[in-house]
Amino acid sequence: MEFFYTYKSIETALPLVDVENAKFAILGIPFDGTTSYKPGARFGPTLIRQGTVNLESYILDYDIDLAELNIADIGDLEVVAGNPLQTVKMGIETIRELKEANPNVIPIILGGEHSMTYAPVKALMPKSYVVFDAHLDLRDEYESNPWNHACVARRISELGVEIAEFGIRSGIREEVEYAKEKGITWVHAREYSVERFKEVVKDLPEPVYVSIDIDAFDLSMVPSTGTPEAGGLRFWEVIEALEWLVKNKRIVGFDIMEVAGMEIGDVTALTGAKLLFYFIGMMEKFGKP
Amino acid sequence: MEFFYTYKSIETALPLVDVENAKFAILGIPFDGTTSYKPGARFGPTLIRQGTVNLESYILDYDIDLAELNIADIGDLEVVAGNPLQTVKMGIETIRELKEANPNVIPIILGGEHSMTYAPVKALMPKSYVVFDAHLDLRDEYESNPWNHACVARRISELGVEIAEFGIRSGIREEVEYAKEKGITWVHAREYSVERFKEVVKDLPEPVYVSIDIDAFDLSMVPSTGTPEAGGLRFWEVIEALEWLVKNKRIVGFDIMEVAGMEIGDVTALTGAKLLFYFIGMMEKFGKP
Amino acid sequence: MEFFYTYKSIETALPLVDVENAKFAILGIPFDGTTSYKPGARFGPTLIRQGTVNLESYILDYDIDLAELNIADIGDLEVVAGNPLQTVKMGIETIRELKEANPNVIPIILGGEHSMTYAPVKALMPKSYVVFDAHLDLRDEYESNPWNHACVARRISELGVEIAEFGIRSGIREEVEYAKEKGITWVHAREYSVERFKEVVKDLPEPVYVSIDIDAFDLSMVPSTGTPEAGGLRFWEVIEALEWLVKNKRIVGFDIMEVAGMEIGDVTALTGAKLLFYFIGMMEKFGKP
Amino acid sequence: MEFFYTYKSIETALPLVDVENAKFAILGIPFDGTTSYKPGARFGPTLIRQGTVNLESYILDYDIDLAELNIADIGDLEVVAGNPLQTVKMGIETIRELKEANPNVIPIILGGEHSMTYAPVKALMPKSYVVFDAHLDLRDEYESNPWNHACVARRISELGVEIAEFGIRSGIREEVEYAKEKGITWVHAREYSVERFKEVVKDLPEPVYVSIDIDAFDLSMVPSTGTPEAGGLRFWEVIEALEWLVKNKRIVGFDIMEVAGMEIGDVTALTGAKLLFYFIGMMEKFGKP
Amino acid sequence: MEFFYTYKSIETALPLVDVENAKFAILGIPFDGTTSYKPGARFGPTLIRQGTVNLESYILDYDIDLAELNIADIGDLEVVAGNPLQTVKMGIETIRELKEANPNVIPIILGGEHSMTYAPVKALMPKSYVVFDAHLDLRDEYESNPWNHACVARRISELGVEIAEFGIRSGIREEVEYAKEKGITWVHAREYSVERFKEVVKDLPEPVYVSIDIDAFDLSMVPSTGTPEAGGLRFWEVIEALEWLVKNKRIVGFDIMEVAGMEIGDVTALTGAKLLFYFIGMMEKFGKP
Amino acid sequence: MEFFYTYKSIETALPLVDVENAKFAILGIPFDGTTSYKPGARFGPTLIRQGTVNLESYILDYDIDLAELNIADIGDLEVVAGNPLQTVKMGIETIRELKEANPNVIPIILGGEHSMTYAPVKALMPKSYVVFDAHLDLRDEYESNPWNHACVARRISELGVEIAEFGIRSGIREEVEYAKEKGITWVHAREYSVERFKEVVKDLPEPVYVSIDIDAFDLSMVPSTGTPEAGGLRFWEVIEALEWLVKNKRIVGFDIMEVAGMEIGDVTALTGAKLLFYFIGMMEKFGKP
Ligand SMILES: [Mn+2]
Ligand SMILES: [Mn+2]
Ligand SMILES: [Mn+2]
Ligand SMILES: [Mn+2]
Ligand SMILES: [Mn+2]
Ligand SMILES: [Mn+2]
Ligand SMILES: [Mn+2]
Ligand SMILES: [Mn+2]
Ligand SMILES: [Mn+2]
Ligand SMILES: [Mn+2]
Ligand SMILES: [Mn+2]
Ligand SMILES: [Mn+2]
Repeated sequence: MEFFYTYKSIETALPLVDVENAKFAILGIPFDGTTSYKPGARFGPTLIRQGTVNLESYILDYDIDLAELNIADIGDLEVVAGNPLQTVKMGIETIRELKEANPNVIPIILGGEHSMTYAPVKALMPKSYVVFDAHLDLRDEYESNPWNHACVARRISELGVEIAEFGIRSGIREEVEYAKEKGITWVHAREYSVERFKEVVKDLPEPVYVSIDIDAFDLSMVPSTGTPEAGGLRFWEVIEALEWLVKNKRIVGFDIMEVAGMEIGDVTALTGAKLLFYFIGMMEKFGKP
Repeated sequence: MEFFYTYKSIETALPLVDVENAKFAILGIPFDGTTSYKPGARFGPTLIRQGTVNLESYILDYDIDLAELNIADIGDLEVVAGNPLQTVKMGIETIRELKEANPNVIPIILGGEHSMTYAPVKALMPKSYVVFDAHLDLRDEYESNPWNHACVARRISELGVEIAEFGIRSGIREEVEYAKEKGITWVHAREYSVERFKEVVKDLPEPVYVSIDIDAFDLSMVPSTGTPEAGGLRFWEVIEALEWLVKNKRIVGFDIMEVAGMEIGDVTALTGAKLLFYFIGMMEKFGKP
Repeated sequence: MEFFYTYKSIETALPLVDVENAKFAILGIPFDGTTSYKPGARFGPTLIRQGTVNLESYILDYDIDLAELNIADIGDLEVVAGNPLQTVKMGIETIRELKEANPNVIPIILGGEHSMTYAPVKALMPKSYVVFDAHLDLRDEYESNPWNHACVARRISELGVEIAEFGIRSGIREEVEYAKEKGITWVHAREYSVERFKEVVKDLPEPVYVSIDIDAFDLSMVPSTGTPEAGGLRFWEVIEALEWLVKNKRIVGFDIMEVAGMEIGDVTALTGAKLLFYFIGMMEKFGKP
Repeated sequence: MEFFYTYKSIETALPLVDVENAKFAILGIPFDGTTSYKPGARFGPTLIRQGTVNLESYILDYDIDLAELNIADIGDLEVVAGNPLQTVKMGIETIRELKEANPNVIPIILGGEHSMTYAPVKALMPKSYVVFDAHLDLRDEYESNPWNHACVARRISELGVEIAEFGIRSGIREEVEYAKEKGITWVHAREYSVERFKEVVKDLPEPVYVSIDIDAFDLSMVPSTGTPEAGGLRFWEVIEALEWLVKNKRIVGFDIMEVAGMEIGDVTALTGAKLLFYFIGMMEKFGKP
Repeated sequence: MEFFYTYKSIETALPLVDVENAKFAILGIPFDGTTSYKPGARFGPTLIRQGTVNLESYILDYDIDLAELNIADIGDLEVVAGNPLQTVKMGIETIRELKEANPNVIPIILGGEHSMTYAPVKALMPKSYVVFDAHLDLRDEYESNPWNHACVARRISELGVEIAEFGIRSGIREEVEYAKEKGITWVHAREYSVERFKEVVKDLPEPVYVSIDIDAFDLSMVPSTGTPEAGGLRFWEVIEALEWLVKNKRIVGFDIMEVAGMEIGDVTALTGAKLLFYFIGMMEKFGKP
Repeated sequence: MEFFYTYKSIETALPLVDVENAKFAILGIPFDGTTSYKPGARFGPTLIRQGTVNLESYILDYDIDLAELNIADIGDLEVVAGNPLQTVKMGIETIRELKEANPNVIPIILGGEHSMTYAPVKALMPKSYVVFDAHLDLRDEYESNPWNHACVARRISELGVEIAEFGIRSGIREEVEYAKEKGITWVHAREYSVERFKEVVKDLPEPVYVSIDIDAFDLSMVPSTGTPEAGGLRFWEVIEALEWLVKNKRIVGFDIMEVAGMEIGDVTALTGAKLLFYFIGMMEKFGKP
């Protein structure tokens, strides 16, 4: 598939298959043109993939070896520096082509800014959008730009997708009001628990798209993200929620966004890499067809 | 007010007012001449203020927008490198002038070493001193110096102020004995809880000065402080204690000390910045007049 | 002048005057939305200004004390993340207003990406543009964007300004051909000398705008810039050229662009800060009225 | 004892005694030739010892001052770069000579890679091996090398020593099967609690050797270790388990392995240093003779 | 060619061809098991390739666009951690297979430790070995290991290959004597000049293998190499020597070794990447068939 | 000699002798309480000594092996944080005791701040003081403190010692006037050459004390010093001057000051370490008795 721009990136430390034979297909979107604070999400896909070298392909919790699964890595989208909208459009088209090449494949996006999540959601059109994030991302625009990362959940809401947000600890009044008006449920990091997650998610319509803004985790685990926030979630309380979700809802796509930094072995990327492997493992083990 | 030395610093990412109209006034004290281990607290005020750019001015938990409040930032004290006592004296004088200019203003100090906390306490003369710290800071002197950061709580105790300490996990026998003799209550980080905090604090006389040595938090959240210690507190268990305190006791001053490092976006500074915004927010929302 | 957005930035370690009384006025443009490789030029203005704390205000070479001069610092332009063209337009307007407020003031821009240099050039309309850079910056567009930093010299050329470039060691065939066609002289870093500089510059029409892309220097001096290149210039061979230029040509504006990084005291910023002080010193000492 | 190679290292910030008079003897093994991911464990012993400067010698929890104890520091083993087996052999011989010089001394090893733990275990021949680790370390070989750090628990198992592992969150199927076959109990980090620890450990035969692979802790506390893993243990839940163990079982040796990095004051080393002091303190306070 | 282990690495930012059609073939050898001081050469191949994203594919000096050439990238050798000899053997075999697949291809090795250079030299059997290095690398063994990086020139000398070394500023008496005995010419960094280079090299027999230990450059340009040394060479004085060599001698292989570090955009890797592009460019422009 | 405080430091990678038998004795003074800009000189002695592990003990240029010389390392002075004068006094006393123990020994001081150089000069009372520095250090006081590092050459001048300074590129008018008045020659970095050095130094009275403020070197070689300055000296042009000086003047003491930072292997420390080895080597080879 010659329309992908793979030469800047790296593959995960896994044996890979062609898209046609894949159950999962990884795509990087190394865009960071609208980052508000700490730049470097452009290196997220490379750092996460490189970080998988740190991991065993076997997931102890599930008795699943990712090296035995059918996973494709289609490289990185050719982004347009300084133009989020055009990059998103290319992302939509790419994911559509991916699904045409293999309608059963589950796309896994590695960011890059959260703004890029619009691409898989638009291409896959789930009924629900479940997101872990420190931020509501419900602004109408930010710095005059509706395609800023701080607006992505609003844009997705405008597609008619139902939204539930977890780990929230930052937002503005306008976003709170919008959420109220549109019936978007969000759970503050202070009130988050796996039980609370289940209560909120259990009635969401299927299929579901799942997005992880890495800043949902505590800033001590993800120091190299665009906008790190104190008071975040811990690893297992996200994994346990995802396990429940995967068992109970059909998932059509997944992403890990906002990993940034420039250092190989940065804990932000290692957290992202481990999450990637767990997600694939739990989908294989428990995934609802 | 020409006695402030502002040109080395930066202002927070907030609209500001004059001291005369302010409810809160921020002052940096970038002194780090007696740091025991990791230097760099001189950059603390700059890094915390710069770190506020990472944050929304709106506090989700309180429905308060700091951009709508009356906050002044009077810059940094002109410190005397290598002379903590002289710097403290200038700090006392500055805070007194600040209170003369506006008797209702609540000073918020950004450090700099913990030794500098003596300045606002001496100037404001609270009845009680509530501090979060990994260290007792009750030494009579350290390296022949009674104005070392490891002695600040002792100096404050000698002013007749009642003291309660939380998050403690380092000290020496002499300090433990002094605390016992003087009736200073301290709670080990292993035994800390918001309930324990309330029990200890509820009978303290008002008004109260509140000091946060950033090393009270777990070293994973604050790697760039003078003496990071494993086994520290987490963000919300400090916030919840502060909320209770603000609701139940009159607060006359607040500080965030020992943020160090040289890197913009260091998680230590971002933790400090978020704490700063939460403190102002909770004072506005719940503060006892 | 309320149209400037100063609260995110910091001032240099100099006593300052109002724009109306200033001979020099510093403006930061913290934009880095189109950076090709290493992000972080958004922190350039803050890091350069902070880096001036490292310096004496007295310039030994000229017996000039910058603390005795009339210098204004008007803060940072409010940039639009992810939109270089809109940011450039605001920059043009701001510099025009600055010149209206004080027609004699010499603007000094601190970047931020090199793309932003279009703003002062367009506002000041010099006859010549003298630039130190590792890159030709003569592309018609880059990643579909004519306002990318790699196109800035081309855009300036299209204004009818004569161009001379020094320290060049990167470009593409298209740029070489464009330079040839338009009579743009460029001197490779391998062939650079102060003598060669004089030969090229001596016949340029006045007034002159001078731009320093910090990557003109050897990558060992400027590790934290967008696209560091080995084989660059050294400090004094740039200073000596600038001294000759300032003595022999009327200068209407100056900038230091592409300082990036996130660390206080990074040598990139310290090189930029020293260059800033030398430029002001030599203008005062030798500047052609 | 001239057989130690001390000149590359540093001593802890404690007053020291000769081996003959010591209750505890510290030995560094700065080997990192088989590290899988992040190198630098060679600097572990230096960084941990240097990190003790950050600490009080008094342990608040035990009312014990390490400065009053008899502790020797015999420097670092002269490692053979790129040859783990030969280095392990030298380690065995060194620890044997140490025990001959003083049969009552308790060796404390600072690593270096986990592979080096074979040396004290072989030299001290405990009945049980209790280890905190993110990894099972039960591979038969790794990269064709049976002396790789990923095989150390297997090698120790082959000595007939009983094994219990805590904090595990990485391994492969072969290791799980080997553990099952040999009756090795391991507790996943998700299921770890001090209660669970006691249940597993209470029936182990004495004496016990205790090994801490620093990667057992959450990666936010130990970013600079060879293979950091998300979802790890926190400081007090390890300390409380060790306290129980020390009270209830005779301990013959202890190590802190896999501290890496190159930065003085790295939180990884500070976590290791604090653990070192706590271990000595609890052995003095509660240690079963 | 399934015998290469590519999944840990990354390709350069160039369009690539198959080995069969290639004029140049890049192979990474990410081994660093015997590094004496600063570890991390395992990341050298990844960091150099990633660093090519910083560069234009067009070489201004030669009017050559690398994007138009036939270059293959065969990934990284599967190294055996902690076993340099076995890794070297696999390297020899791999390069032999590469030459069998395409006898005209010029292998370009990216290290990894300098010890690995033995592999291409043994496989290609040049008559002469021209090396830029801070170190003589003529020890018989180092830490009991004849395959340590400090022995590589000695091992190559034992193959009967003539040797000339440039940029030297570190060695021991034994090495100086060996060089004298075997007629190995070495030029101290203090005495290095392009003229001196030509004098030494002009009589060497062809074909020639060229090796660059990146530590030949001044430590300010290459801070992240295994053993950085002050007083090193600058970029153009190496490039000019290489240009002369390429014009006057037939080259059969080339390598860039000892790039280490963990940071994307580290100047060490950027220096290596630029050297890689220049070497390919000059071979295309001036290379003696 | 129990008056030294050795336990916080590290020894160089050299076999050592007792002070009584030593020709050279190394003393660290890890004081950094008055640092103006970048802190961390407290780690200078540790980092320089640790950096010697990077070096061969054999000096190629002199055919001298430092491992065969009589060198003592007496550890670090116990500094008083925040009190430069008291620390200097202890330094004077220590160096006097050192000379009493062995009148022929040549003290070599590793800093720590330049202020500490007053101690060896006062203790050794040379006739001349030759210093490489970016700064004049001739202020009467700085921040009200006459013992600040910026005053050290002035304090030494007041002892009646003749002074020559090289590599200068920072100072204030007062310092220039003082130098003129007192006949202190200083050579700007722009005008520095070995020839110029010889002209200035040749008539200085003996014996001579030599001080290297590491910031004399270009900031690209010494990024981690208190006040790095662009436009500095290169390694060999300092070494060649020192060689001439050692051959022609009797040297009574030597220091390397202002190495800072927190990272093992930082190029600043490696530059200092190499300079240390060269100085000892040239004293042994050429030193005037
Ligand atoms: Mn988001
Ligand atoms: Mn977010
Ligand atoms: Mn404190
Ligand atoms: Mn503290
Ligand atoms: Mn440019
Ligand atoms: Mn450029
Ligand atoms: Mn282990
Ligand atoms: Mn492990
Ligand atoms: Mn070499
Ligand atoms: Mn070398
Ligand atoms: Mn100095
Ligand atoms: Mn200096």
